[in-house]
Amino acid sequence: MSPQYDVNEQTWIDMARARNGSSISVENVRDFLYHGRQEWLARSRIVSILEHDPVFDKSNRDFLSRTERYERGLAFTNHIFELQHVHNWSEDETKLAISVLDEPLSIGLHNIAFQPVFMQQAGPVLVKKYGHLIAARTIFGCYLQTELGHGTNVSRLETTATFVPATQEFEIHSPTLTSSKWWIGALGKTATHGVVQAKLVLPDGKDAGPHLFFVQLRSLDDHSVLPNITIGDIGPKALAGFAPTDNGFARFNHVRIPKENMLSGFAQVTDEGEYLKPPHAKLSYGGMLYIRANMVTGGGWLIAKAATVSIRYATVRRQGESTSNGFEKQIINYPSVYYRLLPILSRAYMFIQLGRTLTKAFNTMAEGLKKGDTSLLAEMHATTSGLKIYVSTSGVQDLETARRSMGGHGYSAFAGLGRLYADYLPSVTYEGDNFVLDQQVVRSALKSYHQLFSAKTPSVALLSPSSSYLRFLISRPSVAPSLSAQELRDPATAIYLLELRAALIVHEHAQHAADQDASVNQRVSKAVTEAFIAMQVRGMIDGLIALQEKDRVVVTKVFLLFLLTTIEGGLVDLLSFGIFRPLEPGSVATDSTRAIRLTIKQLCEELLPEAIGLTDAFGFTDWELDSALGVHNGKVYEALWNCAQREPLNKTTIPAAYEQSIKHILGRGKAAVFAAQSKL
Amino acid sequence: MSPQYDVNEQTWIDMARARNGSSISVENVRDFLYHGRQEWLARSRIVSILEHDPVFDKSNRDFLSRTERYERGLAFTNHIFELQHVHNWSEDETKLAISVLDEPLSIGLHNIAFQPVFMQQAGPVLVKKYGHLIAARTIFGCYLQTELGHGTNVSRLETTATFVPATQEFEIHSPTLTSSKWWIGALGKTATHGVVQAKLVLPDGKDAGPHLFFVQLRSLDDHSVLPNITIGDIGPKALAGFAPTDNGFARFNHVRIPKENMLSGFAQVTDEGEYLKPPHAKLSYGGMLYIRANMVTGGGWLIAKAATVSIRYATVRRQGESTSNGFEKQIINYPSVYYRLLPILSRAYMFIQLGRTLTKAFNTMAEGLKKGDTSLLAEMHATTSGLKIYVSTSGVQDLETARRSMGGHGYSAFAGLGRLYADYLPSVTYEGDNFVLDQQVVRSALKSYHQLFSAKTPSVALLSPSSSYLRFLISRPSVAPSLSAQELRDPATAIYLLELRAALIVHEHAQHAADQDASVNQRVSKAVTEAFIAMQVRGMIDGLIALQEKDRVVVTKVFLLFLLTTIEGGLVDLLSFGIFRPLEPGSVATDSTRAIRLTIKQLCEELLPEAIGLTDAFGFTDWELDSALGVHNGKVYEALWNCAQREPLNKTTIPAAYEQSIKHILGRGKAAVFAAQSKL
Repeated sequence: MSPQYDVNEQTWIDMARARNGSSISVENVRDFLYHGRQEWLARSRIVSILEHDPVFDKSNRDFLSRTERYERGLAFTNHIFELQHVHNWSEDETKLAISVLDEPLSIGLHNIAFQPVFMQQAGPVLVKKYGHLIAARTIFGCYLQTELGHGTNVSRLETTATFVPATQEFEIHSPTLTSSKWWIGALGKTATHGVVQAKLVLPDGKDAGPHLFFVQLRSLDDHSVLPNITIGDIGPKALAGFAPTDNGFARFNHVRIPKENMLSGFAQVTDEGEYLKPPHAKLSYGGMLYIRANMVTGGGWLIAKAATVSIRYATVRRQGESTSNGFEKQIINYPSVYYRLLPILSRAYMFIQLGRTLTKAFNTMAEGLKKGDTSLLAEMHATTSGLKIYVSTSGVQDLETARRSMGGHGYSAFAGLGRLYADYLPSVTYEGDNFVLDQQVVRSALKSYHQLFSAKTPSVALLSPSSSYLRFLISRPSVAPSLSAQELRDPATAIYLLELRAALIVHEHAQHAADQDASVNQRVSKAVTEAFIAMQVRGMIDGLIALQEKDRVVVTKVFLLFLLTTIEGGLVDLLSFGIFRPLEPGSVATDSTRAIRLTIKQLCEELLPEAIGLTDAFGFTDWELDSALGVHNGKVYEALWNCAQREPLNKTTIPAAYEQSIKHILGRGKAAVFAAQSKL
Repeated sequence: MSPQYDVNEQTWIDMARARNGSSISVENVRDFLYHGRQEWLARSRIVSILEHDPVFDKSNRDFLSRTERYERGLAFTNHIFELQHVHNWSEDETKLAISVLDEPLSIGLHNIAFQPVFMQQAGPVLVKKYGHLIAARTIFGCYLQTELGHGTNVSRLETTATFVPATQEFEIHSPTLTSSKWWIGALGKTATHGVVQAKLVLPDGKDAGPHLFFVQLRSLDDHSVLPNITIGDIGPKALAGFAPTDNGFARFNHVRIPKENMLSGFAQVTDEGEYLKPPHAKLSYGGMLYIRANMVTGGGWLIAKAATVSIRYATVRRQGESTSNGFEKQIINYPSVYYRLLPILSRAYMFIQLGRTLTKAFNTMAEGLKKGDTSLLAEMHATTSGLKIYVSTSGVQDLETARRSMGGHGYSAFAGLGRLYADYLPSVTYEGDNFVLDQQVVRSALKSYHQLFSAKTPSVALLSPSSSYLRFLISRPSVAPSLSAQELRDPATAIYLLELRAALIVHEHAQHAADQDASVNQRVSKAVTEAFIAMQVRGMIDGLIALQEKDRVVVTKVFLLFLLTTIEGGLVDLLSFGIFRPLEPGSVATDSTRAIRLTIKQLCEELLPEAIGLTDAFGFTDWELDSALGVHNGKVYEALWNCAQREPLNKTTIPAAYEQSIKHILGRGKAAVFAAQSKL
């Protein structure tokens, strides 16, 4: 019954053993993930500078108040720009440094939301006047779209921008409480300027719909808020998330701006107040698609962090079921643990690769847009909507699954995953609420479906890459009611099943357009997106040819695990459409899903010895992970102990609460007992 | 395109209309939920006292640091006891007041973990000496079980209690870093005494396994930590959860306690150091079962809060898809919203009722235990394990689903659900990690299965209530491949399907004991628990006879919605075992799950007009909910605005960060621009 080993010391023994036991070349797989050694080295250099800089120390982060987190975020930002100067970083290197910091900084809104929108949609006059100031951050910008009363439905935004021909100005105004801009990142306390989305009102009273206006918010002399604008921070976020960002509100009271401040890249108002329509209204979607495309890569690396932390902890945590030598079992060896963690690892690999493909496709489209070519826009829109939903939904879930797999200690702030979860959580509702975006994915799928079948001769040639799964409706394949383990080990099987399932569910949905059930959009969107990703995974597996064989074999298994667990997640569809069927028709005692589940288990067990190598290949340092349970050397108990010693409550032995309250609670009891005794 | 209404004003119009539109008697349904008007009035009286007391003001809670939350928690506790004296509350009323506060207070550990364990397991000598001090809280206690290196596997705890015959003492010792007690609620800064779980070591060196010892931790004179004990707080929790609780660590360095301080209710050591086995080792499980049984009721009311807040917000939030009169649609009317929220409401109703049944069953068992009757223990153990898993897993998920349904604003701390989530999250890993507990549920199910089939003639008489679903394996019923809407509207159908599915999955599992897949324990545990709950729901529906007919009809639909969505969640099993089958064998184009999904949608639409009434019936006040989005009058935008004005960052116009950082960031840009211009 007594332990035969030192529990603490065993942690690093187990970690070293796991590290040695991995068969892959961590360096080669890492270079593959970073798309070449150069990128890895570039990142590594920056990480090394930041993690040794005392300004970026993380050891007290979990103890800071929100105001302190906000102030620290700006100190970080300031220091990054100092370092940019010192190290002569390029803008890309500076942005990489910012992204490495793992903090939702206000400057991110300037870089990702404000600057691109301004540069793409401001006309040449405005760009000439302010572009260089924005690039140099003399102007700190924010992007004011969402209002207290409206988010998703942009056409109902209430803020007005009324053209005043007499003075050639626009008057920005918030007519109601609910027209207050709300949730605007960097607005609360930081930004000096903003791009405001407002309803353009023409002199004849006509409402020309939402347009963008460049508005100064604060003085560049002393940072005071300009007259007739009310600005503030909207308060803390749920779960203490996004603490460093000053999401803010703003109300405008008849604020005048020059006519030239309308972002006129895609629409204009003449001096007389006549509205000139944009030639390509959709050109303005570029920025949104850019953000969504980037979310796939970002989500991939975030999931990678969760996989690294949780797999490391599960490797060194031992609990229950003694093995023959008196050692407890490493929890990673429990099916209920590895079955949760290895699929997370597989999604990290998949999303990181998918992000690269998507960024390439985005750049091609953006090049086209510059020339007025909008032909790739619809496809990119459909794809990025589906992937935005998919990466954020599964990312949030994976972060929590990983945290939960660590049992009690996973709930410590020092475990590090709660922090990532809190900051990533809004991704399911921002940049298009996932449940609303689902409709767009479905609409696009139905459009392809109807295009195909409204043709005289439906043919594969009519299908775009993202809808090519519909080819299975032209000539329907026959499917065996169940698949052998060998068939399931072939990635082609899973890809085929996922495409077939998408085709059938879209077909079914199209048949019942008038009489839908309540969750159909979510199911169709998921199926369609998974079919698209499956096709992409086919390309990823083909691309592994660049790796050495032993690495290729392992990484192929990682992708296969992604495919098979995706199949498992779609079993209801596969079964309800009869793609999978109970083996003995009419019998009720045979589980037709057993083969796939056993194949997944088998695959997990083959990957188990590689798990530490596969996570090491992400290349995260301890400073980046900032997790007591995910430390590289495995010494998790020492790390937890050391973290706890820094807790502010531990600075004094007797807490202030003793004099304030505890003493009175105890004393009241004492008095009662004394009174009771004296009655005896 | 312009809105035809005042968005802000419309909120309370919509809320009033929804409230008037409900057909049920809110008072009668509320009395039903509270099991009678008396209980409602008793609670109501206490809520009214607390919410009007300035000490319990919640308006600044989201801005407080963790230390402030801890101190506030103790100030609350102190004031509750002051009020107990003022209002002459009974112990039950005082506990109700504490539970109403909606804060994870350190006193909770004294009340729920420390005191019951002490009173049940300390021998008469110890109880006589300390029982009254504990009851009067002259002693503030905690329960020290979990260690840094061990949680679930109690038999491996490393803390030792070595008997020293010469002095008739035990020596409590932490031999290693990993033997440090960890996570102990109220230990960090508050508790004066604790019950320590330690490995009993006898004079002959024999390890008699974990036992409990009563140990003083801090001086009652000045609250200083006693010699040779190292105590501290373990630091903040993930997502800023459980902030008021001082979860702590403790290391003991050869600390001596009198022999009488061993909790000897169920085991003893003679003066000579001989170990006397407990007559009924399992008697000590009572406390754990009590906590688990209470978790069902607690979870039910918590889910009720999430349902109230989210349904209220969805009723007044309008967005998208204009209706004919120019109004946007109330988001509750979108299928993707009500399909998420109404099942949450149904689970709240179910768990609240189930909690009552369970508490009754627990009390019956506890009465038996006092007389040494352990016959009900195994059944209670199996049941409470499954229900603990089920309520915590679905509760955490429901809180997040409700929060997410509120879109962007749901991520504000002021929405209130993030706070509930953060505090409830550890319930899936504490009191038995859900993934570990699953094994116990499965083990118990298999035991019943083998008992049944090892009998000469398997018969229903062999089955306990919690395993009665196995009767379907004795005579297997035939099942129609699909069910009509009418059949699905009969609760008996769903109950039957859930029991049948549990029987088949247990049977299947028993056939493959040697070759299990990786998630089988989770699936079997869920199926078995859902069968048990389904049976209970049958009783709940029968019990509705006490309600007036119009209320009964509505509440029956609530329970039916629970059953049908549970069926929907179990579709993979129902399909893979062939209970449901595609309508046309061999075809791949017909979804056999359509009927059930449409029935759910239909049921939701029937319940929609009742949703506000059904949530009002929970009886929460605005102070209890503390949610800007869940306010009773529906004025959510005004509430959000008012909350934001209190944000500490808004106390000054120009933040400290301006001088510290922002100025430098902007200035550096200015300098660069100036330098570039002067080069021209």
